[in-house]
Amino acid sequence: MKIEGRNSVYELLKTDKEIEKILVQKDLKDEASKRLINVIRSHKVKVQLVDKYVIEKESESKRSQGFIAYVSDYKYFDLDDILSDCKDKDGFIVLLNELHDPHNLGSIIRVCECAGVDGIIIGKDRCVSVTDTVMRVSEGALNHVKIAKVTNVNTAIDQIKENGFWVFGAELGGGQIYKSDLTGKICLVIGGEDSGIKRLTKEKCDGIITIPMFGKVNSLNASVACGIAVYEVVRQRLNK
Amino acid sequence: MKIEGRNSVYELLKTDKEIEKILVQKDLKDEASKRLINVIRSHKVKVQLVDKYVIEKESESKRSQGFIAYVSDYKYFDLDDILSDCKDKDGFIVLLNELHDPHNLGSIIRVCECAGVDGIIIGKDRCVSVTDTVMRVSEGALNHVKIAKVTNVNTAIDQIKENGFWVFGAELGGGQIYKSDLTGKICLVIGGEDSGIKRLTKEKCDGIITIPMFGKVNSLNASVACGIAVYEVVRQRLNK
Repeated sequence: MKIEGRNSVYELLKTDKEIEKILVQKDLKDEASKRLINVIRSHKVKVQLVDKYVIEKESESKRSQGFIAYVSDYKYFDLDDILSDCKDKDGFIVLLNELHDPHNLGSIIRVCECAGVDGIIIGKDRCVSVTDTVMRVSEGALNHVKIAKVTNVNTAIDQIKENGFWVFGAELGGGQIYKSDLTGKICLVIGGEDSGIKRLTKEKCDGIITIPMFGKVNSLNASVACGIAVYEVVRQRLNK
Repeated sequence: MKIEGRNSVYELLKTDKEIEKILVQKDLKDEASKRLINVIRSHKVKVQLVDKYVIEKESESKRSQGFIAYVSDYKYFDLDDILSDCKDKDGFIVLLNELHDPHNLGSIIRVCECAGVDGIIIGKDRCVSVTDTVMRVSEGALNHVKIAKVTNVNTAIDQIKENGFWVFGAELGGGQIYKSDLTGKICLVIGGEDSGIKRLTKEKCDGIITIPMFGKVNSLNASVACGIAVYEVVRQRLNK
């Protein structure tokens, strides 16, 4: 997998991911690039200085800013990893139900990283995977949030519940989110762009929470809706 | 301007916008299309039934779903319009400072429409305008929120303040958003993707409010950050 762009390469270096090599464009003169080159040099990473045309040929995003890192494909965590992290604290898990747009997944990873979410669960089928686009959009946040891919999200919810979590689906037609108690161990279920949360999954939830809306269209982007819901959990925890 | 896709055309019909004509693809058989065609027929709108290849040629988004409406270009409102709407109530204005990405603007329009925001202010220069992409991403919400384009955002802030608004910038390094009183007449200033809120604009603000972050990357997408801040205002108003 290629990680492109100054920010993403910089964030990658903070992790313990195995970096195969980093291509760096020759003759980068700006301060931000020089700073990053110094950071790269301080790590034991194989670096190749290459001409601009090599970068242009290798870049998939066309926004490499002269830096392309090669890492092994994303390694998903197990749900058990995430659950065991949450053993002795009020864990916070976000479960995505049939999300399709890599840009939304990237944005959701960013907001989950900011909010200190312990893990993101995605379904094996019918949900977007961690692709290069997701990696790019996540601006490096991907390296700091555990993502688990599960065969069946409904079975996963059972297991999450057995570990003491309350499971809330964010969806139309439920109780107002601000009136629901979202403290304690919380798993938030976010629906896909088109269809929302699937019926069976919704039935597994302990409650449905709804963002109040006052417009005529009343349609929120999936990552924005996720951000509002995730941060309501954060607010209630800070308030506790 | 072309409005493409079932949802967007449907929302357009709810407004009093002047529709020049609507191209509808012949032989659409699915239920959703049939329903929309009935809605279109109930309006006095010029309709042209055309072959698929005409739709494909005319479509700019390539996601027309067989429906393309032609409307006159977006007509911005005046700041005065928005301010006079807010005269006798706790108005809520969102001011965007040098936002560049049309997808972000589209998402922000959606969240503002949901939250019942009275108006969005964008700067004439250095800020993305209402383009076809913005229209498409906004999923029709654009027709239900007033957007004003101002020559100088700082002068606009002065005028907004003179009308009794408190102006808060959403930015790093301020007071925690959940501890700030955001009731009353509120103008929320949202920074651009790269540079945040400009120094001069920040100095105009009555206060800076910050979304608390607990990660290592701590970078939020502009529309997600806007959504979280806008909905904190909503929450405080509901709570009042």
